[in-house]
Amino acid sequence: MTTTIAKNNTATVMGGPTPENAPRVIIAEVRPHLSSGRYAIKRIVGDRLLVTADILKEGHDTLAAEVRYRALPDGDWQHAPMIFSFDDDEWSGEIPLGKVGTTEYTVAAWTDRYASWAEELRRKVGAGVNVTSEILEGEALVRDCASHAHGEAAKQLNAFAAQLRGAEDGTAAVRVALSPELSALANANEQRDDLTAYRQPLRVIVDRELARFGAWYEIFPRSQGKIPDQGSTFIEAIERIPAVKAMGFDILYLCPIHPIGHTNRKGRNNTLTPGPDDVGSPWAIGNLDGGHDAVNPDLGTIDDFDTFVQATRDAGLQIALDIAIQCSPDHPYVREHPEWFRRRPDGTIKYAENPPKKYEDIVALDMWCDDYVNLWNELRRVFLHWVNHGVEIFRIDNPHTKPIAFWEWLIAEVQRDYPGVIFLAEAFTRPKRVQELAKVGFTQSYHYFTWRNTRLELEEYLTDLTQTAQTEYLRPNFFTNTQDILTEYLQTGGRPAFKVRVALASTSSPTYGVYSGFELLENTPLLPGKEEYLDSEKYQVRVRDWQAPGNIVGYIRRLNEIRHENPALHLWTNLAFHDADNEAILAYSKVSPDEANRLLVVLNLDPFNAQSAWIRLDGAALGITGDSYYMMHDLLTGGRWPWQGLAGWVRLDPQGEPVHIFRLEQY
Amino acid sequence: MTTTIAKNNTATVMGGPTPENAPRVIIAEVRPHLSSGRYAIKRIVGDRLLVTADILKEGHDTLAAEVRYRALPDGDWQHAPMIFSFDDDEWSGEIPLGKVGTTEYTVAAWTDRYASWAEELRRKVGAGVNVTSEILEGEALVRDCASHAHGEAAKQLNAFAAQLRGAEDGTAAVRVALSPELSALANANEQRDDLTAYRQPLRVIVDRELARFGAWYEIFPRSQGKIPDQGSTFIEAIERIPAVKAMGFDILYLCPIHPIGHTNRKGRNNTLTPGPDDVGSPWAIGNLDGGHDAVNPDLGTIDDFDTFVQATRDAGLQIALDIAIQCSPDHPYVREHPEWFRRRPDGTIKYAENPPKKYEDIVALDMWCDDYVNLWNELRRVFLHWVNHGVEIFRIDNPHTKPIAFWEWLIAEVQRDYPGVIFLAEAFTRPKRVQELAKVGFTQSYHYFTWRNTRLELEEYLTDLTQTAQTEYLRPNFFTNTQDILTEYLQTGGRPAFKVRVALASTSSPTYGVYSGFELLENTPLLPGKEEYLDSEKYQVRVRDWQAPGNIVGYIRRLNEIRHENPALHLWTNLAFHDADNEAILAYSKVSPDEANRLLVVLNLDPFNAQSAWIRLDGAALGITGDSYYMMHDLLTGGRWPWQGLAGWVRLDPQGEPVHIFRLEQY
Repeated sequence: MTTTIAKNNTATVMGGPTPENAPRVIIAEVRPHLSSGRYAIKRIVGDRLLVTADILKEGHDTLAAEVRYRALPDGDWQHAPMIFSFDDDEWSGEIPLGKVGTTEYTVAAWTDRYASWAEELRRKVGAGVNVTSEILEGEALVRDCASHAHGEAAKQLNAFAAQLRGAEDGTAAVRVALSPELSALANANEQRDDLTAYRQPLRVIVDRELARFGAWYEIFPRSQGKIPDQGSTFIEAIERIPAVKAMGFDILYLCPIHPIGHTNRKGRNNTLTPGPDDVGSPWAIGNLDGGHDAVNPDLGTIDDFDTFVQATRDAGLQIALDIAIQCSPDHPYVREHPEWFRRRPDGTIKYAENPPKKYEDIVALDMWCDDYVNLWNELRRVFLHWVNHGVEIFRIDNPHTKPIAFWEWLIAEVQRDYPGVIFLAEAFTRPKRVQELAKVGFTQSYHYFTWRNTRLELEEYLTDLTQTAQTEYLRPNFFTNTQDILTEYLQTGGRPAFKVRVALASTSSPTYGVYSGFELLENTPLLPGKEEYLDSEKYQVRVRDWQAPGNIVGYIRRLNEIRHENPALHLWTNLAFHDADNEAILAYSKVSPDEANRLLVVLNLDPFNAQSAWIRLDGAALGITGDSYYMMHDLLTGGRWPWQGLAGWVRLDPQGEPVHIFRLEQY
Repeated sequence: MTTTIAKNNTATVMGGPTPENAPRVIIAEVRPHLSSGRYAIKRIVGDRLLVTADILKEGHDTLAAEVRYRALPDGDWQHAPMIFSFDDDEWSGEIPLGKVGTTEYTVAAWTDRYASWAEELRRKVGAGVNVTSEILEGEALVRDCASHAHGEAAKQLNAFAAQLRGAEDGTAAVRVALSPELSALANANEQRDDLTAYRQPLRVIVDRELARFGAWYEIFPRSQGKIPDQGSTFIEAIERIPAVKAMGFDILYLCPIHPIGHTNRKGRNNTLTPGPDDVGSPWAIGNLDGGHDAVNPDLGTIDDFDTFVQATRDAGLQIALDIAIQCSPDHPYVREHPEWFRRRPDGTIKYAENPPKKYEDIVALDMWCDDYVNLWNELRRVFLHWVNHGVEIFRIDNPHTKPIAFWEWLIAEVQRDYPGVIFLAEAFTRPKRVQELAKVGFTQSYHYFTWRNTRLELEEYLTDLTQTAQTEYLRPNFFTNTQDILTEYLQTGGRPAFKVRVALASTSSPTYGVYSGFELLENTPLLPGKEEYLDSEKYQVRVRDWQAPGNIVGYIRRLNEIRHENPALHLWTNLAFHDADNEAILAYSKVSPDEANRLLVVLNLDPFNAQSAWIRLDGAALGITGDSYYMMHDLLTGGRWPWQGLAGWVRLDPQGEPVHIFRLEQY
């Protein structure tokens, strides 16, 4: 009987509790979580986070629980009550996410001694049991609450205690015991002597709205002039801003703007024999004029950049900057920090490559070199440098070729002081690497959208992205094209293909983007079967005629207007598919949480032939029944069709309008 | 550039790495796991555990990985190689579970520098690139391996290094580089300079075979005599053992065997007015003769108990003992440890109750009293006392009315020194409490089986139990009846109902049990609509005629024979349902992993009427196709029917045989 716990018992090794640290209340699981708290989930400021927990205790006591939360790193703890949501020991509570940054949340639970006693009293009186002793217990419990209460509350509690003692019978005692006033006072003042917190704090990254909803437009600043083949400066590029804004974009994304290397500079169309006037790839970063913290003198000075950023802001746009962690052989790092590069046995630096692909104009930093801590700190300095020049959105080139742990650290470091900063991962790599980069902190990610073209592909792809646990952390950014990706569908499908893909990107995902030239239907590949553009802007200045015949500038402007006007398009997980009896027709809906805004998008994926179909609507998803009458208002054309019930017929001609964006309106 | 990491940075608070502790290889998740390692999974000795992991690294290097495992608390670490199982960054390896106890497992991964170099060389040579520099690198790499190798291996590696340098062209170099001898030598001796282990060790509880496969038979030792109403002793009960063994049971489970209280002793049929000869409930534990470590003198001495245990063992059976953590008011604890009980304000001890139910003959221990650590240690002493008397299986009464953390600690404490000990939870409570008790260590659990009777109920119920993550930790024990549960189906369905339920229990679950009297078709409730037995053995001695007419002793014996002879019935997750065009007919199969043993069980759930049905077989589950010919051999009756293809017809008459247990045999 006097055995004491052996100090060296292996219960701890086995992972379990010792009697001394045994939890009084079991909080088995708190949701949502990613890998039990290893990673943070993501939300948007203004969202309310529903937190649920399985909370258990032996026996029959009544429990109470609350969500506790605070803004990291040092906000005050706040709490929100939880309610027992159904008869399977699940509790739930909601917390407001009012501040951009990381919020920590956890759950605490305890025995509600007073409520437990009152419930037992009620059941016993109901069963006709003598409750004299129970009333004495209750009186003592209420007096104990009074002893921890102050002023008027203490007085009231003592008065209730006397009422309990004086109750003429059990029924009268139950009436006093269950009175809302006494219950509230007791709950507020009773001792939470077995209060237990969840074993693991969880985290939610709260981003600004732009992290979920935004339209991106990519430009090369040097191509924004008016004279063919002649590069433009930041100051000249300012003239282009109003047109981008007029198309309805939210974010103006710039390819790298740093000095470009001369050694092994690429010529036009990725050739290795550049002429003296060839401008080189902006991703071959660094020369005698500077590295990642410098501006290419051809574009102007850092002051000119600041002026450009300010002009963008004044127009109501935000700047995103491309950061590629790699160096031209002429980069200052190569001279100043030879220890940051991997060398061959013959003493030369290793070039970046992915055999048989070669990138002759860039060398890779060795992110795990012996001096990597200083390298990482320098890279953090670079990011903070651009934040200080007004860049709050970064598009990260090939993040999957740098350590995942580096990004986790870097993003946390930047967001600690600048929690609004957005990181978009250009992670065209295998799914689990894309997911892991998102889990460790990337705000958004490029994704496989460009390569999903058939109805079956799109339905599977979008269902996986919008209806699985990935929605807790992965926000895809649906680019229709990039400077590297001109898909076969666009190469061959002509104007209808461009319209379908941009309508699909902009209505299925709240975040999407286009690389400039898309609106001009640029569709010539370098070689048949390749996704590289002919005369790629990566290797030469491309001055365009933005009013070229056949352009879809107006179409894109209308799509962006529709996006802004319809809150259903601002969300991601509200996507639902509807069946069509023609495989060329894709139909999906988005409905706002209050159901006030209901859209049905129908696309003809065939860019060559008119297609028609009966759409069988999922009534639950759209809030309609077989008896419903409603007007289908096409927001693209203004056309209106009265529909009834759960089916409707469409015909879409690619030579006319290959897409309907219907809003369901009152008949 | 010389910035150092701020010591107080909040990256750690945010949950992420610092550069200094950043993992080199990302092991994103290791499976199987329960709540990221908070709980152990369960397996059986002799099983092989398939461990998979998502392993990621930036760039294009070739990785290598292994599972590391050791018997806790202090076994030596061993390792098993992992292979890249498919193109989604998932690796897998298998470890043998050769020892009963808890095994810890984790995953370690590193860059296979040599293989990475060889693969790069192969791709470059294939692309026609000059590889002079690469060969120099490879030579250096192999020489480095040699410098860490010993004796012959070092010599061979140096010879290979020379061969590489001397290779006449790239193709020849590739031939040397990819030779199995060099690859193996390099892999074995290269430095694992970025070796990274998973963040969290995981655990698997390895139980003995009986934890998964066993048939239980419950008796009251005092009812094993031959003279009506006269109690039997352990020594007399020994005579009953051969019959239990002959029925094919594996485990003989005894209700509590301790001294029974006198205060508020219950009379027959749970009355409060016992006569002087009433024996009381064995669950009202403790009187002047002793408490939980004592034997009821009416049953004999502790030596007699030892004799009984030895006789059971000699017969090839194992003993399970019921432990109920509760006390008669006469228990020694009440006098010696008044601090272990909760008292009312009037000084009396609180009785156990669940209003309106009352248990007047027992008082509850206060498991969280101020002195609870000593109380828990005393209870551990009680369990170890019975282990020392040969009890290696405990059936725990109402575990959900004691702290879950207590069980986690207690089970770990007992299994630390006696890893073969089995704990069965009598947790008739809400699902998440049942699950949590299983997660924290209970080997098996009673479950809701008795209340699942219709085909739809059974299909849903068994699918949930056999096809979800619960199989990692929860092993239900399907009792057909207990001393507390006589279901309506048994009360009303007569002999066919008893046959159907025991066939269902014994073939759907590898672990099942019956409470004695079942084989005699005892089916009279205390009151209509109640599940209590009339003249319950809980409150009186019940001497039975084991050869009573109509008994199903032979039927149960045959079922247990079939169970032992057919390995498909030893497993749990191999259950698959087959459709029948009659709702009264339930059909399911079990197939052994090697597919050598294939059973199809078909039951008529209607105990009153003959029912027939076409069974539509799931060919994939049974390993048959529409072209298959096979013999359906009914193991109950010996009947044989040739079937062909994916459908077969059955007719089951409850007055004959309501169940087929078919073995699929060669035609």
